[in-house]
Amino acid sequence: MFFASDNSGPVPQAVLDTLAEANAGHVMGYGADPMMDEVRQRLRDLFEAPEAAVYLVSTGTAANALALATLTEPFDTIFCTPVAHIEEDECNAPEFYTGGAKLTLVDGPDRMTPDTLARAIESQGNRGVHGPRRGAVSITQVTEMGNVYTLDALKALCKVAASYDLPIHLDGARFANAIVALECTPAEMTWKLGVDVAVFGGTKNGLMGVEAVIFFDPAKAWEFELRRKRGGHLFSKHRYLSAQMAGYLRNDLWLDMARRANAKAAHLLAGMDGCPQVQIVNDVTANMIFFEAPRALHQTLKAAGATYALSGGSLETGDAEAMLRGRLVCDWSIADSQLDRFVSLLPKK
Amino acid sequence: MFFASDNSGPVPQAVLDTLAEANAGHVMGYGADPMMDEVRQRLRDLFEAPEAAVYLVSTGTAANALALATLTEPFDTIFCTPVAHIEEDECNAPEFYTGGAKLTLVDGPDRMTPDTLARAIESQGNRGVHGPRRGAVSITQVTEMGNVYTLDALKALCKVAASYDLPIHLDGARFANAIVALECTPAEMTWKLGVDVAVFGGTKNGLMGVEAVIFFDPAKAWEFELRRKRGGHLFSKHRYLSAQMAGYLRNDLWLDMARRANAKAAHLLAGMDGCPQVQIVNDVTANMIFFEAPRALHQTLKAAGATYALSGGSLETGDAEAMLRGRLVCDWSIADSQLDRFVSLLPKK
Amino acid sequence: MFFASDNSGPVPQAVLDTLAEANAGHVMGYGADPMMDEVRQRLRDLFEAPEAAVYLVSTGTAANALALATLTEPFDTIFCTPVAHIEEDECNAPEFYTGGAKLTLVDGPDRMTPDTLARAIESQGNRGVHGPRRGAVSITQVTEMGNVYTLDALKALCKVAASYDLPIHLDGARFANAIVALECTPAEMTWKLGVDVAVFGGTKNGLMGVEAVIFFDPAKAWEFELRRKRGGHLFSKHRYLSAQMAGYLRNDLWLDMARRANAKAAHLLAGMDGCPQVQIVNDVTANMIFFEAPRALHQTLKAAGATYALSGGSLETGDAEAMLRGRLVCDWSIADSQLDRFVSLLPKK
Amino acid sequence: MFFASDNSGPVPQAVLDTLAEANAGHVMGYGADPMMDEVRQRLRDLFEAPEAAVYLVSTGTAANALALATLTEPFDTIFCTPVAHIEEDECNAPEFYTGGAKLTLVDGPDRMTPDTLARAIESQGNRGVHGPRRGAVSITQVTEMGNVYTLDALKALCKVAASYDLPIHLDGARFANAIVALECTPAEMTWKLGVDVAVFGGTKNGLMGVEAVIFFDPAKAWEFELRRKRGGHLFSKHRYLSAQMAGYLRNDLWLDMARRANAKAAHLLAGMDGCPQVQIVNDVTANMIFFEAPRALHQTLKAAGATYALSGGSLETGDAEAMLRGRLVCDWSIADSQLDRFVSLLPKK
Repeated sequence: MFFASDNSGPVPQAVLDTLAEANAGHVMGYGADPMMDEVRQRLRDLFEAPEAAVYLVSTGTAANALALATLTEPFDTIFCTPVAHIEEDECNAPEFYTGGAKLTLVDGPDRMTPDTLARAIESQGNRGVHGPRRGAVSITQVTEMGNVYTLDALKALCKVAASYDLPIHLDGARFANAIVALECTPAEMTWKLGVDVAVFGGTKNGLMGVEAVIFFDPAKAWEFELRRKRGGHLFSKHRYLSAQMAGYLRNDLWLDMARRANAKAAHLLAGMDGCPQVQIVNDVTANMIFFEAPRALHQTLKAAGATYALSGGSLETGDAEAMLRGRLVCDWSIADSQLDRFVSLLPKK
Repeated sequence: MFFASDNSGPVPQAVLDTLAEANAGHVMGYGADPMMDEVRQRLRDLFEAPEAAVYLVSTGTAANALALATLTEPFDTIFCTPVAHIEEDECNAPEFYTGGAKLTLVDGPDRMTPDTLARAIESQGNRGVHGPRRGAVSITQVTEMGNVYTLDALKALCKVAASYDLPIHLDGARFANAIVALECTPAEMTWKLGVDVAVFGGTKNGLMGVEAVIFFDPAKAWEFELRRKRGGHLFSKHRYLSAQMAGYLRNDLWLDMARRANAKAAHLLAGMDGCPQVQIVNDVTANMIFFEAPRALHQTLKAAGATYALSGGSLETGDAEAMLRGRLVCDWSIADSQLDRFVSLLPKK
Repeated sequence: MFFASDNSGPVPQAVLDTLAEANAGHVMGYGADPMMDEVRQRLRDLFEAPEAAVYLVSTGTAANALALATLTEPFDTIFCTPVAHIEEDECNAPEFYTGGAKLTLVDGPDRMTPDTLARAIESQGNRGVHGPRRGAVSITQVTEMGNVYTLDALKALCKVAASYDLPIHLDGARFANAIVALECTPAEMTWKLGVDVAVFGGTKNGLMGVEAVIFFDPAKAWEFELRRKRGGHLFSKHRYLSAQMAGYLRNDLWLDMARRANAKAAHLLAGMDGCPQVQIVNDVTANMIFFEAPRALHQTLKAAGATYALSGGSLETGDAEAMLRGRLVCDWSIADSQLDRFVSLLPKK
Repeated sequence: MFFASDNSGPVPQAVLDTLAEANAGHVMGYGADPMMDEVRQRLRDLFEAPEAAVYLVSTGTAANALALATLTEPFDTIFCTPVAHIEEDECNAPEFYTGGAKLTLVDGPDRMTPDTLARAIESQGNRGVHGPRRGAVSITQVTEMGNVYTLDALKALCKVAASYDLPIHLDGARFANAIVALECTPAEMTWKLGVDVAVFGGTKNGLMGVEAVIFFDPAKAWEFELRRKRGGHLFSKHRYLSAQMAGYLRNDLWLDMARRANAKAAHLLAGMDGCPQVQIVNDVTANMIFFEAPRALHQTLKAAGATYALSGGSLETGDAEAMLRGRLVCDWSIADSQLDRFVSLLPKK
């Protein structure tokens, strides 16, 4: 019952096969491998963006930090939520890569609204040289709390950013899960709304470690390449990044994987629905479930072998009735039997 | 006839097999995977350094820059040769990761001597706060020009660094090739001489993209971990780095690969020996040959399909007799028939 | 009626005289001038800290950012209030000088409490390498909202910081005003409570541009000196910084100036007390008054020539009754007649 | 006999008078003071550059580092000589302010030639993303070795930079001394040759600590302002910077001071001319003399109280006949009697 993270599961055989396919003979390094040509073309097609600059890096933190560094000056401030991965889980990587930009937190905790975003923007950039300049707006889709912005919600945020002439970064670590949840196209979720740079994540959806960074306007492409190299994120044997992404894109594997993960969360949610002790916290349409339950129930689940993140207090000590929050993340590979076993541990009405 | 780089070749099957082995079920991420335990133990054993802190990153630039950042303050200067990878081929990554340290170039172009190193150190650190403070000494073994420092030569350099109380970084992108060339142990080439941090490269010797960074004194281990995460170099699905390194270390694969690559260079060198037009530039004991030859000969070789780096002038235009420099790098996988074909293109006495 | 800032007023004649005194003949630069010896000794005496390292810089932003950089690693987060000068008014200087550290905002808006500080600290440093490490606590005394922490309040904050083993930075841009308000000694307000580095501001209290940075433990003194030079903040003709500070310290001029400024604020406050339309927002014991008043009253005051910062809305447009916030800062030089004229513009009961 | 530096002397009375003049009443801070309007206008007139953006900072290191940061990306390399102040005497400030750019040293040691500059530029920027991108060319006039580039020499260097489309920074710490030596206009020595940003130094020529940074194309003006504030180099009581520069510009004081300093060096040089033991190293047309003389003579000079920088060996120990290098810098205030006394210590033919 492994729900700790979608980066804990294995890689599908198709990706290993593409790796093996790529592993033949000598090829040029640093992104000049033929499979990168395939990846670039497929992503441009997929995003209906024939001019887009497309790059691969191996971690989400690198993808976000490098993208933001390209959009942002060191004397700027970036707008994001308090639970954004770039704020909470990257150990100051955005500050590092931007050369010391600030992150201004939009009231949350999770989804921004046009109003909270506008208020955050208004709070900055009005002190002349004394405060930082307004910089990029960074939106995570699927959010870190497992919510999915509707296209209308995203559009409204992008409109606010545009009204201040601010660039938009989309942290798409779970890009595929959002696409599946919204049943839209990648273009509809990105540049058609005004997104400048999107991270098209692969790692959380079944790859070993690959994220695509897509600049819809290639004007900053060369700068990104220099920054990627400077960050130590340009692979000499780049074909092994390309191969993972190629395998991911062929035959819509990326969509299949995300459909599978989302479906597993839906399956799990349905099973949890009947438990009066459980309160679901987020709108579950992707692959994450946040729920509150009494400490005693968490103790039962964990004792039975369920692995997931817990917050709000200690598992072991405290009132048995106190509500703690759990996070369940379904990856493509988790067996249905595991989901059912988890559900079977919940008391029913 | 692909001699462009040792990062152009494929990965041996044994490494793919270990990847497949690692690809089972759910495991914890970020270095807490069981195969990392194996890797850590094997490297500690190999280096006879039971306390060493051992980390994996995916590129040599990351390994060097993170190691140097941990040894160096932003107001320091690092000592290296003018052809050092950290000076020439990392697009200011050391400056970036250290927060703006300088690189002071030791007279070269290639191997440092105790004298050139001491002179470089003496040239810095004597202007109070006006100039940078003396920082780490960075030595590359095998050097970027394909030379291998003897243990005595290394020892003499380390003694100079120690006399100024400066930490020592060993860029071991071709660590295995040097060990094979010197027939020594990893400990003899590192901490026994006073090396503080060694990069134990895997990528150029047959892995997809993994380098181990080894701190012989673990005091800075936690700082390294924070810097690695901040640089976006901590893999969530860390097992795929671990697996490559595990496969590399099992059954002395790393030594077999390096022996093979070095032997191929020796084979090639023997064949080149009979050509009066060719002058070998470096001491070939590892897997790289630098040679000078007339432009016309380079034209013949390139026209026949030999791929290698050329410097000193244009291939196409200029005096046919003018000497240009070529760099031939043999990776483990290059076929002997390719070597022989290259040699067959050379005019004999 | 100039209440815009305490950095808008002139310098007292005594400081000009010391400048002229210092302007004789040739002296060594970069802090080796004899008047710096005097300053160092006087500040050590004043702070009862014979071992303290004492440095001068020309701006408060430099003083804060350099001090914080010396206490903090780039992978740390600094704790401060949302209105802290380092957060709001230094255009990312702390992020710049620390190499990319984050600022975590303690619930405010203004004075921290042990509880709000502890909560902020608890919110960080518990995600292993994923989030930043806990770094320095930065406290401003007098606060940016014109409040003065009691010694007990400061002591309680320092105790919280100490319980997490975090260093403490005191932003004392208005150090003298606080000392006068609290009637305590510099030692009592700093190292006796656990403060590691204090900024002893001179600029806002009548100097041209000098702040002393005082490290009570000199272990980091040399690092500070290198960072100061690297930041371009080491004056070659240092004697002109020394002279200002020497003039400030001689004959307790610094206390006289602060007493004067605080007394002017008290005088102004007394006059405002009788006006039913005015609500005082802060605890006025130093030299700043924050007050709320209807837009119409602000319009009257401004039309009559009062210069001060306004927040909460536009002066010109909006409901005449809407309450806007004004900030009145008294410097040592403002004439009593100006204070009285301001008061005379206020409607009385 | 104080020849250690031109930053060791006092400030002329006219500057103190302007400071006193500026010290009246309340004025707006941060560069909005009326005297800054005067300074801006005068410098625009002086440089025949009505659109130029003009800023003041308090140190030469700040002026250089901020100017370079505005011209340079962190993945660039800056071209300068090995003895450039930005390389030798700023403790990595350029690396810091640019966010980690490199400095590539043009063969020297001192004056660049079109050929040495072109070779340095050619050595960089040809490795794609692997090496740094070519960045600004930084030229010091008067050079650190006391030489003055002719306008033709500068023009040739600027032409080389332009042919690579690289911006040009002029470190004019001794700008006035060069203008006097060349008998040209500021425009002729800067933008008419293609200089993008010039530092117009005041500190070494008699001010307490003020340098003007002049952008001939104001496109980067706002960025400079943000970077200046972020660096802690924006003075709140800016009028005291303005006043120094205003006093310096009124009545051509800046030229008078430089004429005086240069004349003193010429006077000293004439006196040294008759001494067979002394070899003059540089072309003395400004205010610095580099000379070689036997250790024994240096011992005599130093024992008699001459203060100047010595290089090439220890004053005390070694062969009495060994030649050591001395640096004599004349500031405007050094008394002729001191010059004559120095000369009197030299053995004559």
